[in-house]
Amino acid sequence: MLRTPLVRRLANSAHALARPTPRARTLSVAFSTSRPAASKAPAAVPFTSDKFPELVRDSRFGSVTPEHVARFRDITGDVDAAVISAGTNTAQELDVYNEDWMRKYKGRTTLVLRPKTTQEVSAILRYCNEHTLAVVPQGGNTGLVGGSVPVHDEIVISTVRMNAVRSLDEVSGILTAEAGCVLEVLDLHLRERGFCMPLDLGAKGSCNIGGNVASNAGGLRLLRYGSLHGTVLSMEVVLADGTIMELGKPLRKDNTGYDLKQLFIGSEGTLGMITAVSILTPPKSSAVNVAMLGVKSFAEVQEAFRRARLELGEILSAFEFFDRTCMDLVKRHLPIREPLETKSPFYVLIETSGSNKDHDDEKLATFLERLLEEEVVQDGALASDTAQAHAMWNVRESITEACSKEGGNFKYDLSVPVPQLYAIVDAMRARLADLGLLRSDSAPTAPVTNVVGFGHIGDGNLHLNLTTTGWTRELNDAIEPFVYELVQARNGSISAEHGLGLMKAPYLEYSKSPEAIELMRRVKAAFDPKGILNPYKYFPRQ
Amino acid sequence: MLRTPLVRRLANSAHALARPTPRARTLSVAFSTSRPAASKAPAAVPFTSDKFPELVRDSRFGSVTPEHVARFRDITGDVDAAVISAGTNTAQELDVYNEDWMRKYKGRTTLVLRPKTTQEVSAILRYCNEHTLAVVPQGGNTGLVGGSVPVHDEIVISTVRMNAVRSLDEVSGILTAEAGCVLEVLDLHLRERGFCMPLDLGAKGSCNIGGNVASNAGGLRLLRYGSLHGTVLSMEVVLADGTIMELGKPLRKDNTGYDLKQLFIGSEGTLGMITAVSILTPPKSSAVNVAMLGVKSFAEVQEAFRRARLELGEILSAFEFFDRTCMDLVKRHLPIREPLETKSPFYVLIETSGSNKDHDDEKLATFLERLLEEEVVQDGALASDTAQAHAMWNVRESITEACSKEGGNFKYDLSVPVPQLYAIVDAMRARLADLGLLRSDSAPTAPVTNVVGFGHIGDGNLHLNLTTTGWTRELNDAIEPFVYELVQARNGSISAEHGLGLMKAPYLEYSKSPEAIELMRRVKAAFDPKGILNPYKYFPRQ
Repeated sequence: MLRTPLVRRLANSAHALARPTPRARTLSVAFSTSRPAASKAPAAVPFTSDKFPELVRDSRFGSVTPEHVARFRDITGDVDAAVISAGTNTAQELDVYNEDWMRKYKGRTTLVLRPKTTQEVSAILRYCNEHTLAVVPQGGNTGLVGGSVPVHDEIVISTVRMNAVRSLDEVSGILTAEAGCVLEVLDLHLRERGFCMPLDLGAKGSCNIGGNVASNAGGLRLLRYGSLHGTVLSMEVVLADGTIMELGKPLRKDNTGYDLKQLFIGSEGTLGMITAVSILTPPKSSAVNVAMLGVKSFAEVQEAFRRARLELGEILSAFEFFDRTCMDLVKRHLPIREPLETKSPFYVLIETSGSNKDHDDEKLATFLERLLEEEVVQDGALASDTAQAHAMWNVRESITEACSKEGGNFKYDLSVPVPQLYAIVDAMRARLADLGLLRSDSAPTAPVTNVVGFGHIGDGNLHLNLTTTGWTRELNDAIEPFVYELVQARNGSISAEHGLGLMKAPYLEYSKSPEAIELMRRVKAAFDPKGILNPYKYFPRQ
Repeated sequence: MLRTPLVRRLANSAHALARPTPRARTLSVAFSTSRPAASKAPAAVPFTSDKFPELVRDSRFGSVTPEHVARFRDITGDVDAAVISAGTNTAQELDVYNEDWMRKYKGRTTLVLRPKTTQEVSAILRYCNEHTLAVVPQGGNTGLVGGSVPVHDEIVISTVRMNAVRSLDEVSGILTAEAGCVLEVLDLHLRERGFCMPLDLGAKGSCNIGGNVASNAGGLRLLRYGSLHGTVLSMEVVLADGTIMELGKPLRKDNTGYDLKQLFIGSEGTLGMITAVSILTPPKSSAVNVAMLGVKSFAEVQEAFRRARLELGEILSAFEFFDRTCMDLVKRHLPIREPLETKSPFYVLIETSGSNKDHDDEKLATFLERLLEEEVVQDGALASDTAQAHAMWNVRESITEACSKEGGNFKYDLSVPVPQLYAIVDAMRARLADLGLLRSDSAPTAPVTNVVGFGHIGDGNLHLNLTTTGWTRELNDAIEPFVYELVQARNGSISAEHGLGLMKAPYLEYSKSPEAIELMRRVKAAFDPKGILNPYKYFPRQ
């Protein structure tokens, strides 16, 4: 029986709801709303190559033949569904790997390989390189930009069967795990031993650590534990030609040459296939506190953040914000009560994680009192138990679902210097109002019903969502590339944490200079001269 | 008048002694002992090319002519000593840039350029690349491996005049500074505004932030704030051909393409010249505590570290160790009192930094009491004021000086998985005893008088020092490459934080596979096709 990503994802969804951690459900919720109920037959996902006819198949790449498949069966053995091929398996079994979970992208692969060892990955890639067969490395297939599914008939190489924990140094907290380990499984493994993973995201029950690293996943703990560029200590990778490389050491310090593993963090499978990762894991926190604040202006959101960094410093683990429209939408569509009495233009959710509950309670209470006294905030509440903490997180995490219940959505994951973060939302509203596209008393039938901003203030990460009556070319052209120009003008990034994949590759020029893109191409050529790794993505189409 | 690194270094030395921070003096002490007093004429530093005749000058490189110098004067203007050349300046003025501060390496450059702007750096490098003139980027010239001084007649491009702070985002703590800013100057600039630099090292009064990043400096705050790979957000660099590149954005999150700036962190000037850096700076801590522990075995050092990570977690900012021999040497050569009453085989120094003094006092006191009760440690003391904290740090920081007063030194900066860290010291002692080279009652005239281990447990960073009656070839061959083999067998790193430079390049193979070194060469070729940037270093000699 196949242990497909879908089965694992649904299993996790239930699990995520049952466990006490109030966060890490954003994507699970998204799954449950975007995946139609099992009783209704879902509409077919359109093929990516039909949707984007400009993405012509590269004729240099060979096509998979029965001889190739036989060779791959020799390499992997045909145990535990190591090879899934059109000759033997159903289209549905291949769809699991051809389609992304948002049902936006679909490839036409006829072959999925699920190696168990690094040596198998090496033999597979060596063979593919010799025969110029294009491949797509795939982890849990939970990406948001279409980066891990084929465009044409690229062979999928899945990490799911490479899922052993190789070691944990319990003195320094250094974990070495194979690429196919599920993030949540690793986190549970660590928690039993007093540690935790330094990253956390909604897809944790399905996503693979190899995919997390390949896509430089951000998520909910970045404010506290920093990015993967700091926590990933070393990596085992297989290059396009099958060379197995250890990049770096499972050590905190190593100054012997270029830190090549860093290039693989966020390379989205274009430089090689990550087969194992060593990562520095922090001790788990014994005390977690949550508070919600009501704030009058975005300037005061920033002031509250500045003060939180100073006064909560070492225990601050999340600083999220959302605007009043988000709160209205959540209340309209979901059975959620407003945690604060006063209505405010902006809300802030603060989480602290520390090693001493009494100390953290006191720090957070003092911080809140001072901010109320000094009128930096106009209302605030401290969760007194896990249920209240859960309820506060629930508001923040339900925004995406509430937006999707309001109608069609345009969604942007942007990174902007904090002081200018909300100006993006204001500018978008102003433009749409100018064009008569934003609904108001004077434009009661305009197609854009709401423009909302929320996100991770601590990371300068804005999620800009527009709810609409539906997609039209006119609307699309009113928003893009305008939104990317807004970001570019503020020296921001058009992709804060989701990556480039297929979706954002065409817009890379809004975040990178032509010289930088040229240097990226030189690096790509040095690592993958034949270009067989994850083609058609990451680089701007030419 | 030239504002030379030497003048700045001495000025800083006094400053470092006067200011209250008890750390950050290791290198200053080293300076004062290794630099002879001003009244005595120092012995001349031997030329590197005489010491290592195998380092033959690469005949592809052009030699500096008066026409070249005139062109460079056009580019930089001849203001504020932008150009220091053999035709105009004294040998002593050039020596400042030709010699490293340890007086181990000396180049023969006849030209030092000190540009003021990125555009000047660009014009200089474009010209050098066109004329195949080799260059050495140089910051504060405080490196420990001979990486920032010329070997032959490479042109020195110094960052010292590029020292403007470009911006500080006081909401998120993102600082953008030019490469020539002195680390301590930046730290003071930040402290006045409630932040601090996320790195701290002995050379802080002289070293430049560009050099820190180019050499991936580790230092004293790494345990708390992580490595530069996590804190450096973006970089402005000039490539060998003069192209100015912005690599990354001054943002916490940016997933748009390969993170090329990471390659420059630790590239030691071989890929391009860093001209500005954006770095995430933490809020400064309002409370700092220091404690010293006496421990019976290295196993208990590890247990104390494991417990400190769990119980002090978010406030732990240093966890240093040293062995009994270190304590004996410090007492023998320096006017220092032992902080603890009980003599122990190992000592641990713990520092915490947090936002609430009462909370931190309580956490550290409780932690110490428990460890004493459970007999993980056999003695311990908590500094009750700054003077006591200073005295405790003083023991740890005087080890290098005490070793140098004992005789000739062999020094190794190694990174090893924490559980096996002290085994390196034991193995070295055993080998030298076997060979009759370690002094003891049965070998009273043996040349190695002490083998000591100390360092940053929190980072897995061992400093292994051997004190000897003097350097001999026999002794050298008994130690090297044996010490590197010990490290290699434990999957460690032969350079934890000092880098490769000229000194460690020949031993790179002990930490990197031939495939990884080949991949490094491919990256080098992609960035610097003519190889003009910092030649003769970093890569193993062939």
